[in-house]
Amino acid sequence: MLNFSEQPHKRKNLLTGEYILVSPHRSKRPWQGQVEDLAPDNRPQYDPTCYLCPGNTRADGTVNPEYNNSFVFVNDFSALLADTALDIFNEEDLLKAEAERGICKVISFSPRHDLTLPEMSAKEIQAVVDLWQREFQELAQHDWIKYIQIFENKGSIMGCSNPHPHGQIWAQSSTPVEIQKESEQQADYFQRKGRTLLQDYLELELKKDERIIVNNTHFVALVPFWAAWPYETMIISKRAVPSILEFTEEEKEDFAKTLQELTIRYDNIFKTSFPYSAGMHQAPVNSGDHPEWHWHMHFYPPLLRSATVKKFMVGYEMLANPQRDITPEQAANTLKQQATVHYKAK
Amino acid sequence: MLNFSEQPHKRKNLLTGEYILVSPHRSKRPWQGQVEDLAPDNRPQYDPTCYLCPGNTRADGTVNPEYNNSFVFVNDFSALLADTALDIFNEEDLLKAEAERGICKVISFSPRHDLTLPEMSAKEIQAVVDLWQREFQELAQHDWIKYIQIFENKGSIMGCSNPHPHGQIWAQSSTPVEIQKESEQQADYFQRKGRTLLQDYLELELKKDERIIVNNTHFVALVPFWAAWPYETMIISKRAVPSILEFTEEEKEDFAKTLQELTIRYDNIFKTSFPYSAGMHQAPVNSGDHPEWHWHMHFYPPLLRSATVKKFMVGYEMLANPQRDITPEQAANTLKQQATVHYKAK
Ligand SMILES: O=P(O)(O)O[C@H]1O[C@H](CO)[C@@H](O)[C@H](O)[C@H]1O
Ligand SMILES: O=P(O)(O)O[C@H]1O[C@H](CO)[C@@H](O)[C@H](O)[C@H]1O
Repeated sequence: MLNFSEQPHKRKNLLTGEYILVSPHRSKRPWQGQVEDLAPDNRPQYDPTCYLCPGNTRADGTVNPEYNNSFVFVNDFSALLADTALDIFNEEDLLKAEAERGICKVISFSPRHDLTLPEMSAKEIQAVVDLWQREFQELAQHDWIKYIQIFENKGSIMGCSNPHPHGQIWAQSSTPVEIQKESEQQADYFQRKGRTLLQDYLELELKKDERIIVNNTHFVALVPFWAAWPYETMIISKRAVPSILEFTEEEKEDFAKTLQELTIRYDNIFKTSFPYSAGMHQAPVNSGDHPEWHWHMHFYPPLLRSATVKKFMVGYEMLANPQRDITPEQAANTLKQQATVHYKAK
Repeated sequence: MLNFSEQPHKRKNLLTGEYILVSPHRSKRPWQGQVEDLAPDNRPQYDPTCYLCPGNTRADGTVNPEYNNSFVFVNDFSALLADTALDIFNEEDLLKAEAERGICKVISFSPRHDLTLPEMSAKEIQAVVDLWQREFQELAQHDWIKYIQIFENKGSIMGCSNPHPHGQIWAQSSTPVEIQKESEQQADYFQRKGRTLLQDYLELELKKDERIIVNNTHFVALVPFWAAWPYETMIISKRAVPSILEFTEEEKEDFAKTLQELTIRYDNIFKTSFPYSAGMHQAPVNSGDHPEWHWHMHFYPPLLRSATVKKFMVGYEMLANPQRDITPEQAANTLKQQATVHYKAK
């Protein structure tokens, strides 16, 4: 019988079909390596130099409105452009390239410069969820858009260049690599079983109750069995829907509460604003029905031992295989033990 | 006609079969995000607290020999162990895991604490190449070992916890994810064409001469057409051999010179010890012949704009698709313009 907390082993990621390596015995490894700088966190409610604060002027001269909840605009430095000609390049099938079209947007989560999701009320978070839903719907109306990636980079350690709470949406004309993998695995499962992969996976996880962090009427947050990042989690909708478009008012309320509780638990682990990259995975759009696709949201946080020591996905991980030290079950236990009130709240 | 330096586009990585996204117009993006600390680089030739310096005592009490060239030992904190029982875990095909066996080694590149590969002589680098070849041969003698990953994490930004010049070898009982992808693409090509994929790719790159950095009798270093990291490169052997085991004395000498020239050019870009994760990709061992496999070495360096501003592979990249700003051709030009004498040498 495989002993998860003693034997080095690999686990299958059902969504990508790829394995990750777990080295549970290695947690004792001493650390003399890089320690991250913690930027002092005493931001003002309003910063006159911030391009996301209400009333400020952005790079292209536009003035932000005096908004009350969340606020969205096209990224002034978009990685994708809506009007690129769809040219193709191919030399002997060895050098292959294709133009890619897209729209990149920025969403400010709050007019307050000094907040983050876990410090906002469930109602304020729900305004963000509403905006995500509206944006998804609007972007999908361009028939040339095939996939919409909604995500957030939180913390300078995750490449976030402005601490004002915000996320991004990149919508594009083809399906990105990670979505192709998840489409394939989910389609294969749905064809064989007539149910979504995540429906059956979620049912089993709820039965075992070893990795569940949040469980309310409509959503579950858990540490996936195959988590690669130390405190990686996933939010899964209990109803098998392909995208945020299908969320009812009641579901949006529950989703906001799930986001709030999960991110509060994160912040409480190391009593720090817990950095991560997070984003929803949803069915491709303008490409027929996708009953096999089950909406979910991934959280990839880099911290490992403390607020300043992260996991490095480097040499072996980049060249061969993702690897982790603490087990997903250990991470789940730590998350479960956290209070659901933010450490900064009095 | 697709304009590489103006239009956002995606390029196919022939070795993995996956695409990467290029956003050439985005280089103007301003940067107010995280800036890396540069550890002051005034290391002594010998550090009494370093576990790699000659004569010092390691974590487990072993005393390092007074070695002259390179030196190898089993990692005191190995991620893989040679004696794990090969147990399997499977619950409803939804939770799948397997024990993984392996051997992890550390290779000190030099008795000198203050050097790095680009500061060593070609002769000294060749001693490292000799050791890599010997270790590959010895590890492959365990018939349960199926793949051997030789790599180096250089710089604290790449999770390297000791600046003493060193690399690692992880040998294991199954084939890691990245190797499976490359095996598949190379096998498919070899079956169709009777030549290795990299033979034909290299021939075309030499003809075009747009991305070639080093070109000597036996090796080429180039920026691959599908590079994802800003200054990503690849060393390819001109002879199609599956592993380092086949390298002749003459080839080893040329390989050492290629390593030296490439890493000197790297250091010269930003006049800093250029961080990277690098490693060889070679045919799986103890699993029959692999005429489709063509030895090569990847360099994944994180720096983008300066010695302290790196590329973040975060939200969009983790959730959807690897993305880059400067084009591979721009990176190749910068690398070609560098002197082949190290900036510190007088
Ligand atoms: O074994 P080291 O050098 O302590 O560790 C370093 O390289 C390993 C292999 O790429 C990674 O798993 C670690 O995250 C990194 O810090
Ligand atoms: O667009 P931003 O926030 O400036 O940039 C950040 O997120 C992008 C999308 O994940 C990444 O490509 C960048 O490397 C990162 O710094």
